[in-house]
Amino acid sequence: MQPYLIAPSILSADLARLGDDVKTVLDAGADVIHFDVMDNHYVPNLTFGPAVCKALRDYGITAPIDVHLMVKPVDRIIPDFAKAGADYITFHPEASEHIDRTLQLIRSCGCKAGLVFNPATPLSYLDYVMDKIDVILLMSVNPGFGGQSFIPATLDKLRQVRSRIDASGFDIRLEVDGGVKVNNIAEIAAAGADMFVAGSAIFDQPDYAEVINAMRQQLASLTSTIV
Amino acid sequence: MQPYLIAPSILSADLARLGDDVKTVLDAGADVIHFDVMDNHYVPNLTFGPAVCKALRDYGITAPIDVHLMVKPVDRIIPDFAKAGADYITFHPEASEHIDRTLQLIRSCGCKAGLVFNPATPLSYLDYVMDKIDVILLMSVNPGFGGQSFIPATLDKLRQVRSRIDASGFDIRLEVDGGVKVNNIAEIAAAGADMFVAGSAIFDQPDYAEVINAMRQQLASLTSTIV
Amino acid sequence: MQPYLIAPSILSADLARLGDDVKTVLDAGADVIHFDVMDNHYVPNLTFGPAVCKALRDYGITAPIDVHLMVKPVDRIIPDFAKAGADYITFHPEASEHIDRTLQLIRSCGCKAGLVFNPATPLSYLDYVMDKIDVILLMSVNPGFGGQSFIPATLDKLRQVRSRIDASGFDIRLEVDGGVKVNNIAEIAAAGADMFVAGSAIFDQPDYAEVINAMRQQLASLTSTIV
Amino acid sequence: MQPYLIAPSILSADLARLGDDVKTVLDAGADVIHFDVMDNHYVPNLTFGPAVCKALRDYGITAPIDVHLMVKPVDRIIPDFAKAGADYITFHPEASEHIDRTLQLIRSCGCKAGLVFNPATPLSYLDYVMDKIDVILLMSVNPGFGGQSFIPATLDKLRQVRSRIDASGFDIRLEVDGGVKVNNIAEIAAAGADMFVAGSAIFDQPDYAEVINAMRQQLASLTSTIV
Amino acid sequence: MQPYLIAPSILSADLARLGDDVKTVLDAGADVIHFDVMDNHYVPNLTFGPAVCKALRDYGITAPIDVHLMVKPVDRIIPDFAKAGADYITFHPEASEHIDRTLQLIRSCGCKAGLVFNPATPLSYLDYVMDKIDVILLMSVNPGFGGQSFIPATLDKLRQVRSRIDASGFDIRLEVDGGVKVNNIAEIAAAGADMFVAGSAIFDQPDYAEVINAMRQQLASLTSTIV
Amino acid sequence: MQPYLIAPSILSADLARLGDDVKTVLDAGADVIHFDVMDNHYVPNLTFGPAVCKALRDYGITAPIDVHLMVKPVDRIIPDFAKAGADYITFHPEASEHIDRTLQLIRSCGCKAGLVFNPATPLSYLDYVMDKIDVILLMSVNPGFGGQSFIPATLDKLRQVRSRIDASGFDIRLEVDGGVKVNNIAEIAAAGADMFVAGSAIFDQPDYAEVINAMRQQLASLTSTIV
Repeated sequence: MQPYLIAPSILSADLARLGDDVKTVLDAGADVIHFDVMDNHYVPNLTFGPAVCKALRDYGITAPIDVHLMVKPVDRIIPDFAKAGADYITFHPEASEHIDRTLQLIRSCGCKAGLVFNPATPLSYLDYVMDKIDVILLMSVNPGFGGQSFIPATLDKLRQVRSRIDASGFDIRLEVDGGVKVNNIAEIAAAGADMFVAGSAIFDQPDYAEVINAMRQQLASLTSTIV
Repeated sequence: MQPYLIAPSILSADLARLGDDVKTVLDAGADVIHFDVMDNHYVPNLTFGPAVCKALRDYGITAPIDVHLMVKPVDRIIPDFAKAGADYITFHPEASEHIDRTLQLIRSCGCKAGLVFNPATPLSYLDYVMDKIDVILLMSVNPGFGGQSFIPATLDKLRQVRSRIDASGFDIRLEVDGGVKVNNIAEIAAAGADMFVAGSAIFDQPDYAEVINAMRQQLASLTSTIV
Repeated sequence: MQPYLIAPSILSADLARLGDDVKTVLDAGADVIHFDVMDNHYVPNLTFGPAVCKALRDYGITAPIDVHLMVKPVDRIIPDFAKAGADYITFHPEASEHIDRTLQLIRSCGCKAGLVFNPATPLSYLDYVMDKIDVILLMSVNPGFGGQSFIPATLDKLRQVRSRIDASGFDIRLEVDGGVKVNNIAEIAAAGADMFVAGSAIFDQPDYAEVINAMRQQLASLTSTIV
Repeated sequence: MQPYLIAPSILSADLARLGDDVKTVLDAGADVIHFDVMDNHYVPNLTFGPAVCKALRDYGITAPIDVHLMVKPVDRIIPDFAKAGADYITFHPEASEHIDRTLQLIRSCGCKAGLVFNPATPLSYLDYVMDKIDVILLMSVNPGFGGQSFIPATLDKLRQVRSRIDASGFDIRLEVDGGVKVNNIAEIAAAGADMFVAGSAIFDQPDYAEVINAMRQQLASLTSTIV
Repeated sequence: MQPYLIAPSILSADLARLGDDVKTVLDAGADVIHFDVMDNHYVPNLTFGPAVCKALRDYGITAPIDVHLMVKPVDRIIPDFAKAGADYITFHPEASEHIDRTLQLIRSCGCKAGLVFNPATPLSYLDYVMDKIDVILLMSVNPGFGGQSFIPATLDKLRQVRSRIDASGFDIRLEVDGGVKVNNIAEIAAAGADMFVAGSAIFDQPDYAEVINAMRQQLASLTSTIV
Repeated sequence: MQPYLIAPSILSADLARLGDDVKTVLDAGADVIHFDVMDNHYVPNLTFGPAVCKALRDYGITAPIDVHLMVKPVDRIIPDFAKAGADYITFHPEASEHIDRTLQLIRSCGCKAGLVFNPATPLSYLDYVMDKIDVILLMSVNPGFGGQSFIPATLDKLRQVRSRIDASGFDIRLEVDGGVKVNNIAEIAAAGADMFVAGSAIFDQPDYAEVINAMRQQLASLTSTIV
């Protein structure tokens, strides 16, 4: 088992002081910056693109940047994000006709590649590509729509993906995004996740370190329980 | 004739310190903040959306924000930008099947409405909507593609739009975007423009005030020439 | 000048008793049945298709049926409406890449062909097809959106189309749709229209004949004035 | 097991006398009115939309209305149908990128939600949404194309869905649409269906009650057989 | 006035012996090879792409190849055709949102650039790009649909384009495609065309030279008439 | 087990001498001509369409032609290929909303019907249509993208499809396309394939017969091994 990663989503950060806010959350203990790209087509919202990613790099942010593409189609913009400093690039299988090829494209750009599953998306998209995947992201809310809470059916789905990963023998992260909070992170980790996106749960609090520490404490208690 | 407006495009600003950079350019004498929205469909790039606009308002920016939608379709996202603090919202006539309706929608959201013309787009889209337009934006480069210089045919087109505006009797801004610099702003203004978008011409210089002042000087010399 | 035609739009009729309501409005003096087809793509509403048209024919309605296609694309469904009993089929030039071909297709199906112009659509689409057109329909509201009133700029546009028709020498109807009422029909006719769509103005009144007669009276007074 | 429901499809009703024909079929013993919405995009036909649904309610029809959306995309029109009086709203999983969200949207509008499966569509779309579904509709013909008969592979598929429903513990209707007739309804019910759409099988007969009674008799014989 | 060019369209050639048939028609006096690319989206047919163009070059064909793109969108495939040996690349203005940019792209690939006008397409697309155009192609039939004859309204349109070209001072070819034959080529040339696409008129005859010579004779008689 | 079929892909043939090259490869022992149709939408390339297929028939080619549609949507062009002489027509399930209907359409045109699976496409699309399928084509590279080698995960997938075919009892070909060569054809056949597409592996060699014979030898050794 790899160490747990906390990945704050900058969707909830202060976008007018983005460099500073990202630096603060990293200083507070975050591991990865989660970067939600929406194009107003795949989801009904438009957020930010490669230039914002590059601005973070130019600002001096060196932590891994985890780009979640909620765009359709996906291929044309992938090299742009790679050049802008992305480490992970994930996309929805429904957003590419040529999933295997898109996964190869991401890796050929020097990034880690992943698939994202909407709450209702079946896992069969994983059947023939486990060897080309570095991360699997399960959405526990519907991406691009506001005000939702964690969908409980995600727990079973996490367990199924965990089994697939373990059976594959590959070193694949299992990420979850949507409604992750201090009070449910242990349960989510117990179901198999090892990378946790959190937006407002962190950025809406006055002290980021307090939240992140509380999350880590939950995760630690889980590990000791397991042991 | 209305006073000239200088509208720096934040596409060239430091997006990791956006609030601060915008404040600086406004303090340096800019009149309006130009906000280029790209959706990776209408143009091959994706920039930023309503949340970034709102972040500027939350930061304390009170200058007018001029949202140029390079998205297709346009209607769904218009109310989002109005709520996020936009003052002007402009769109490309090719990006809406119902241009008159979209113009009405923008005004009904409390914003100023405008049409944007790509370099090759004919002016006939103006024929029946002059009473619903607050600004006409002529692109003097192709939006969404990098590294272009001012297209000379824009000057004639500016003169034609200026004639249409004057003939209409309506109070309509004539804006130009693409390759505007200190050394051509006077010629562009002489052709009829009164609102000038400039990106790298301002943000790539160490002293924004110096550029903006130089632009205003050019414009002032023109005015005295005319008189 | 051809005789004026009143064309009630069944969009405002009682759709649960459509045959009966259509018969009533024809008995009350209507000339043509206007049939608004929306597909939830070209406009944000979905109304009714060929089977409803055919049901009117099977019910015994023999008056001309004037099908206004607010659909995109248009070619596939045109033969369906011809078979279902349409007399006129009109479409929006923006909804077909091959306008000349679509006009030919409609005529080859035995129907009268026409183009529909949204409020902001320029008239240049007419430049090379006047010989293939039987009717030109000007929208005086934006199709598919509720609660709008007659757009005044339509009057000038009507005059321009009337000039084009007269100059062409062809026998082409000039139809108008949107916000036509007893109190403005004379002005609209004076601008050149000779075919008038009216929906709620007729169907929302208890006595259809009274409205239609009042419209005809307005039109008659105009004719005598002209003479 | 819930009581069987017979759902005549108004696609085969007399659309010029729709209110009356619907009333007749309900008086003849039908339980639910099936309402087939086609948009000429998801399927190559266009039928009728919310205004026709509302007209039935205004006419006094109080039976449940079961709206089957053969449209893509689906979200925008769902609230329109809810307002127009729909009780059930079902859609095809291929027609929404955000299936879980669409199911939630339907329920949030106060309607019962369901997924529809084309003959070849795999059942994996059900894997993570059984708790959000009130009805599962299996197409036993290809929707939107005429002149087809019941596809035999549907029987196995019905049995598989019946197992999933029973295993889930949720109260979910299993509906079937396409080629259902007196002579096969028992076999279809035996495979697990409990809600039966029938169009021409009912509306093309002179005496609706006779057909519906014959269907119920077939179903009753089945029940007694089972017992 | 430039010399007339005859451009046989390989759509009518023997596609199983393409190299040989093209060589024969060039030996028979043809000037340019016209290459009709259809994508089954912009028009309802699919013909051939870059690999077929390259095969002609590899075969030893050195005559200019004139690629007419009936595809939408157009930008991605342009460099492929440039690499495959195209000399001219023309596209429909409705098929690109960024017409000026597409014209620049073609020239930047080392090819001559042009716009194609469908029979009903207005000429206003030419208003601001005459300096970026090497050829203007008027369709005198609807592209992609079989069995059509020359549309007479093309003659007036040719005269209007000829005036625009002459007024511009640029060296721009005026090409015509659709129903050009020996018996109308003089009239078409008299209207201003100087480049003539002919498909079956040439390839369906046993002796290509005879047809091409007959066309040239018609054109020569015209020139002498003019003088 | 049916006899093995070698199907050279004309994508790698000499397109300027296509009839001759196809005849040569058939004389060299090929069984079937594989015909790759790309539309620049489903894949980023455009190849050739029905007219090229017909030209082969007119040239005198009588071998089976196996049309692989890499187009989206698929239905409109299917009858064109049937008329042009296709024997097999296969398509990607993602490219049709109505897979069962498309399979029926192909058979109703007198052709053999099949589904094609991209490397990552799950097999669940086969669940309910085995009785309507004559061939299943597994892509062992991503279609439409150049320079790829055989994806190893295809071997497992072949074994799974072989099991499905054997379990079904239907007479269904199992075809594979992408990176098939003399040195891996035995392994691929051992995994269950019985129809082998090869492009450059055959056409880039000076002696087609030599390659085809070498492939058959590999296949023969396998058969004897199995026995």
